[in-house]
Amino acid sequence: MKQPAEAVETGIVPILKPDITPVLNLIRNYHPLNAEVESFFRERISGCLVSKRKLLLKEGTPCHHIYYVVKGALRGFVKEGAKDITTWITVENDLVTSIFGLDEESPAIENIQALENCELLVMTIDDLEELYERFPIANNVARKLLQRYYADAERRAFIARLTKAENKYRHFLLRHRHLANRIPLKYIASYLGMTLETLSRVRKKFSRS
Amino acid sequence: MKQPAEAVETGIVPILKPDITPVLNLIRNYHPLNAEVESFFRERISGCLVSKRKLLLKEGTPCHHIYYVVKGALRGFVKEGAKDITTWITVENDLVTSIFGLDEESPAIENIQALENCELLVMTIDDLEELYERFPIANNVARKLLQRYYADAERRAFIARLTKAENKYRHFLLRHRHLANRIPLKYIASYLGMTLETLSRVRKKFSRS
Repeated sequence: MKQPAEAVETGIVPILKPDITPVLNLIRNYHPLNAEVESFFRERISGCLVSKRKLLLKEGTPCHHIYYVVKGALRGFVKEGAKDITTWITVENDLVTSIFGLDEESPAIENIQALENCELLVMTIDDLEELYERFPIANNVARKLLQRYYADAERRAFIARLTKAENKYRHFLLRHRHLANRIPLKYIASYLGMTLETLSRVRKKFSRS
Repeated sequence: MKQPAEAVETGIVPILKPDITPVLNLIRNYHPLNAEVESFFRERISGCLVSKRKLLLKEGTPCHHIYYVVKGALRGFVKEGAKDITTWITVENDLVTSIFGLDEESPAIENIQALENCELLVMTIDDLEELYERFPIANNVARKLLQRYYADAERRAFIARLTKAENKYRHFLLRHRHLANRIPLKYIASYLGMTLETLSRVRKKFSRS
């Protein structure tokens, strides 16, 4: 079982014999799995625990892994000078990677950080490429997953482009209500491109209505 | 040859026997084409001329087509009340659609508008789905194209999230220098989330340095 090469540096602890059922179920939502593909996943997927606040990825480096979140919460963020801007927040049952790692291995423009203690399943991008080569059907599943994640990314970008705080928070609640009382408000404020004070004011207004 | 159903409403004029070589070449960049796939494309791709300012897609409706830009420039925009916010600008040799049409045919949250007189090649999303069904290799090409377009979308979102006008314009020039003296400044300003006055000030500063 391969372990992420940068595991030690970033303080990630491997899990022996992780239960990879959640990943198999995710794939099965899109296409039946044969024994050969399943055995490929069992051989290549590893697991790890990542402590709260640890970085899974640092901007400027290529992302060599794709993660499935079994437990916990993570965020993506970019830097503008000293300022740190949250670009997405993700919790259980979701995939996490940098799209720049999939697209010609260019360096990530973002950082990925654990917001809670996380349990993750991991595959290297090299293994993912081998999966695409050996099992053509993996391209079909990946295409559908990419369409879904791309649409989600456009919805996030839509929120980022809105100018009124109330509109931003309304759209946030439409798709991310489950994050509203779980994630520290400073990250939600940063994600929505507003100050903590503005977010608190808007939340008060929404809780009254 | 199928024509887009909404063609008449939106003022799109069909082209008879369009030259589809640019689309074939785009695909060939990713994978060799066999005669059967090529003939599928020849049968299903139509062409159209779209006048400057016309809408190709209106928010709230599903996008039933994918376009290849042979000539001209288009933009995506979203509405926030009376305000209109440009989300992307695209010129020749690029694909245009709403990702929400590919992902479960949900209605688009954006509008697509011609910024110049455009010549486009067109395929319906139904035909695209048939392509994926009949030719598994199309999923491989689509996966790679989606990875590229998704990465581009994240770069656009990154610019939208920056707070300083100079940083935004610097990143815009890095990937979109070819648009800087072609597209009316009001659309570039809107894309960058700044006023026309701010954009003019920043451009003056950049032209001196």
